[in-house]
Amino acid sequence: MNVGFIGLGNMGGAMARNLIQAGHAVIVWNRTPSRVEALKSIGAKVAASPGEAAKAGTVITMLADDRAVESVVYGEEGILESLPDGGVHVSMSTISVALSAQLAKAHQNAGQHYVAAPVFGRPEAAAAAKLFVIAAGSPEAVKLIQPLFEAVGQRTFNAGEDPTRANVVKVAGNFLIASAIEGFGEAFALARKSGVEPEKFLEILTGTLFVAPFQKVYGQIIAGEAYEPAGFAAALGLKDMRLVLAAADASGVPMPMASLVHDRFQAALGRGHREKDWSVIARLAAEDSGL
Amino acid sequence: MNVGFIGLGNMGGAMARNLIQAGHAVIVWNRTPSRVEALKSIGAKVAASPGEAAKAGTVITMLADDRAVESVVYGEEGILESLPDGGVHVSMSTISVALSAQLAKAHQNAGQHYVAAPVFGRPEAAAAAKLFVIAAGSPEAVKLIQPLFEAVGQRTFNAGEDPTRANVVKVAGNFLIASAIEGFGEAFALARKSGVEPEKFLEILTGTLFVAPFQKVYGQIIAGEAYEPAGFAAALGLKDMRLVLAAADASGVPMPMASLVHDRFQAALGRGHREKDWSVIARLAAEDSGL
Amino acid sequence: MNVGFIGLGNMGGAMARNLIQAGHAVIVWNRTPSRVEALKSIGAKVAASPGEAAKAGTVITMLADDRAVESVVYGEEGILESLPDGGVHVSMSTISVALSAQLAKAHQNAGQHYVAAPVFGRPEAAAAAKLFVIAAGSPEAVKLIQPLFEAVGQRTFNAGEDPTRANVVKVAGNFLIASAIEGFGEAFALARKSGVEPEKFLEILTGTLFVAPFQKVYGQIIAGEAYEPAGFAAALGLKDMRLVLAAADASGVPMPMASLVHDRFQAALGRGHREKDWSVIARLAAEDSGL
Amino acid sequence: MNVGFIGLGNMGGAMARNLIQAGHAVIVWNRTPSRVEALKSIGAKVAASPGEAAKAGTVITMLADDRAVESVVYGEEGILESLPDGGVHVSMSTISVALSAQLAKAHQNAGQHYVAAPVFGRPEAAAAAKLFVIAAGSPEAVKLIQPLFEAVGQRTFNAGEDPTRANVVKVAGNFLIASAIEGFGEAFALARKSGVEPEKFLEILTGTLFVAPFQKVYGQIIAGEAYEPAGFAAALGLKDMRLVLAAADASGVPMPMASLVHDRFQAALGRGHREKDWSVIARLAAEDSGL
Repeated sequence: MNVGFIGLGNMGGAMARNLIQAGHAVIVWNRTPSRVEALKSIGAKVAASPGEAAKAGTVITMLADDRAVESVVYGEEGILESLPDGGVHVSMSTISVALSAQLAKAHQNAGQHYVAAPVFGRPEAAAAAKLFVIAAGSPEAVKLIQPLFEAVGQRTFNAGEDPTRANVVKVAGNFLIASAIEGFGEAFALARKSGVEPEKFLEILTGTLFVAPFQKVYGQIIAGEAYEPAGFAAALGLKDMRLVLAAADASGVPMPMASLVHDRFQAALGRGHREKDWSVIARLAAEDSGL
Repeated sequence: MNVGFIGLGNMGGAMARNLIQAGHAVIVWNRTPSRVEALKSIGAKVAASPGEAAKAGTVITMLADDRAVESVVYGEEGILESLPDGGVHVSMSTISVALSAQLAKAHQNAGQHYVAAPVFGRPEAAAAAKLFVIAAGSPEAVKLIQPLFEAVGQRTFNAGEDPTRANVVKVAGNFLIASAIEGFGEAFALARKSGVEPEKFLEILTGTLFVAPFQKVYGQIIAGEAYEPAGFAAALGLKDMRLVLAAADASGVPMPMASLVHDRFQAALGRGHREKDWSVIARLAAEDSGL
Repeated sequence: MNVGFIGLGNMGGAMARNLIQAGHAVIVWNRTPSRVEALKSIGAKVAASPGEAAKAGTVITMLADDRAVESVVYGEEGILESLPDGGVHVSMSTISVALSAQLAKAHQNAGQHYVAAPVFGRPEAAAAAKLFVIAAGSPEAVKLIQPLFEAVGQRTFNAGEDPTRANVVKVAGNFLIASAIEGFGEAFALARKSGVEPEKFLEILTGTLFVAPFQKVYGQIIAGEAYEPAGFAAALGLKDMRLVLAAADASGVPMPMASLVHDRFQAALGRGHREKDWSVIARLAAEDSGL
Repeated sequence: MNVGFIGLGNMGGAMARNLIQAGHAVIVWNRTPSRVEALKSIGAKVAASPGEAAKAGTVITMLADDRAVESVVYGEEGILESLPDGGVHVSMSTISVALSAQLAKAHQNAGQHYVAAPVFGRPEAAAAAKLFVIAAGSPEAVKLIQPLFEAVGQRTFNAGEDPTRANVVKVAGNFLIASAIEGFGEAFALARKSGVEPEKFLEILTGTLFVAPFQKVYGQIIAGEAYEPAGFAAALGLKDMRLVLAAADASGVPMPMASLVHDRFQAALGRGHREKDWSVIARLAAEDSGL
């Protein structure tokens, strides 16, 4: 199908490539034009503006944060102005629940569809078309774009008709990963100070109960203190914790563990770890133990 | 082999049964005598005291807490007095690192072996001989008793020669489970207050990233608010958090997430959840959100 | 001097009264018109809009939150439109640092002065003209309006030329009060569970180290569990903790104690204490202890 | 009156001196004998053992921790063995509630009195005989030793007949001071990162609400980052937080703020601040903010 794709970063670039390779006609736009070349070489058209990409009738946004999404949706040559009647904006970025609610309303008022479809998976999973897609929006729109999800992911979950629910699930999921990392960080610090080799500790943890792939990935990083290069930077982790806390505040939910993890990211940045992998929060417990 | 077994609770009873069924000659002792009948009926001998059980040359303790272990080790008719020269005390209870260190020393002074071998697994795993055993102690002693571990568990990990290291791994592991439960509690509260059905949320979490069996088990309990009957009571969860914090304090490791989870268990008891499953700490975030 | 006064709640009503009694010519505006009657009866003029009040040349805003302040500043008949060239907007509400920065810029662009002058003190202090005023803004503007501060407060502090600094001091101060309350809550729960009478405990605390008047006020409330009627509602406490955390986030400062207190307010609301005095967070530790 | 005095550190040395200067006949003992010289020169007798000091009939202990107190009470030549029938052990050290309960029982069994009488005040207050004494024990014993309290303190509070209550008040009080320090630490970090001068911030805080002397003392240290030399070392702060958390655990009281402060002390030690004043925990928020 015809689809516009906006945002060609580590995640978006890989997703757009997979869409093309699955046979879709993709027209891309990126703020930094240099990123479009690789896609162009495999058959992507290049749009001169977000609005031009939106004219494809279906447009995916995969951008860094709320501000970036707002900048391509609103204003002249923006998505809202150019998306055809009945067209679909598929918002796959990790954005705030509040912005998602606002976009849902704006598109509805404009006679357009809005589907929130954030994903779980690091860049490697995006490259391998192994993302998990959490979609929410009107059933007809979600059904229409299902082929796109199949081209980028291994499985799609439907979180209901209210698009914001997909965003809630996404920010809650990222909180759960981050809090597991913090837990590992504290546990590894205890193990090391108690004379247990990190590799031995990792082997036991991941050989017994903590067998989810993400636990193995982060356990290895932490045991080896291999926080660079970053797969997902600490500064983005902080952003994600702000998103979950904003959602919690709006819903009246106290989340003390999320608060703790948020403060850890803030401290990681303050202690010079901004550009390292977000799992570097595990380093803080070690530092605080004199390791 | 000949083995004494002390402590026939939910865990110990199942383990002793598996030892017998694997062909070992088991002599049991339990503070509450009624518990021995079931074992006797399948071939266990019954000891009149912990010391008599220890005379088997190898003796396993699987008891509720430090105090219970101390009561069978020290004093008249205790293990320390009766275990033969070169005999092995296999301490499988979840006890403090400090007590384990003390027992190691006491047995060494008495010319005996001490192996710490705590386990991961709930009573169902104990019944199915699917426990994970984390063993630490002198290599010869660990090797000698390996058949016993094979009779009760699916896999044994060797945590080194210093017995306390197995206890550190055990308390750290329990902390990681408890903190994952707290994370789920907060995330489910957010989901519910945001209109996401708990069952849908669970399906997405366990269908994407949170695929470890323990995450599924506790996710189901939390989604269904099925905190009774308790597989492992909240009061025991509090005990375990005390153990990890005591180890952390002794090692000079600040563990803010462990502190948070400890305080949650304390609050769970204060709010009347003492006898419920320890995953009831997930209920607190719901209560605090007005759910 | 001539001054407009916008916002006649518990705090603002008392402050406007004190301005009139000090001889100033006050023109008031309140969203709920009924509140103006009492002021009118002692000599206030009544404005038909915020803008009309601003035409006095100096206008004070004393409102509940950011939204209320924005609603009287921006738009038709708003302060920004009507305040004369060189006029002064004195913003005494507890608002976000971010909004204060934005107002400073807007007024500067409009050729007007903006002075942030939040206050410390409960309604009783406002009634008695015993507030503490924390003022920041251009020295000439601050000097000009000093007589107004003298009419409502016992002392004015100058926090510098950048108006936002006064707001930072205010939100930090409220955080310190709230965290002292939380500390008392936990300490009183411990005392009570340990058999120390709350009144005895209070007597010792306030007779030794904790002698600041606010400690006595809140100590008495907590010892007597006299959370109603509210002097300052729990819901407002939550708002204030949001303000301090927003400022912290914007400045890159992790504030774990502020996070903790924020989550306590959220839990207090979730447990049904929304309308009680904000010191009701001290009740949570008691509840969590089974008291 | 005749009184033995055991423990001549910064606090005890000053207290013993004040007892002598008030006309009491004091016989001192200290583990490190060099400390007794100064007291001897102003008229103290010197005991050869804790027991000899106890033979005075009333004996005060003012020592660093539980272990030190146990070492002079129990065993040969200890207080318990030597204190006459009806004699009084006045325990003024900051010790655990649990040890205080144990000492109360031991002295009662021995036909002796035990009065817990911990104090509030730093070494300067001890030198100036301006301590606050929190006494608890049998009314007759407390009355008997009142002159001793008057010689060392400015005021005595009676916390009841159960000696442990005085210890609860003491550890709760120290928690409140430490948590106020942590609050200041976070608030000063926010102020500094927001461009508010620490001295200006301090002036406003202590000129408005935070007027208790201890707030001024610690505010000055924090504003000036003058953590050395230590009036009371960070390692002792950690000890005190352990005491309050142990009391909380024994009473079933979750104290999340105490947990947070405990973890801050642990981190302060881990980051190399062990020997600095305990207010150095305020430095952590600054470090975590990149200051």
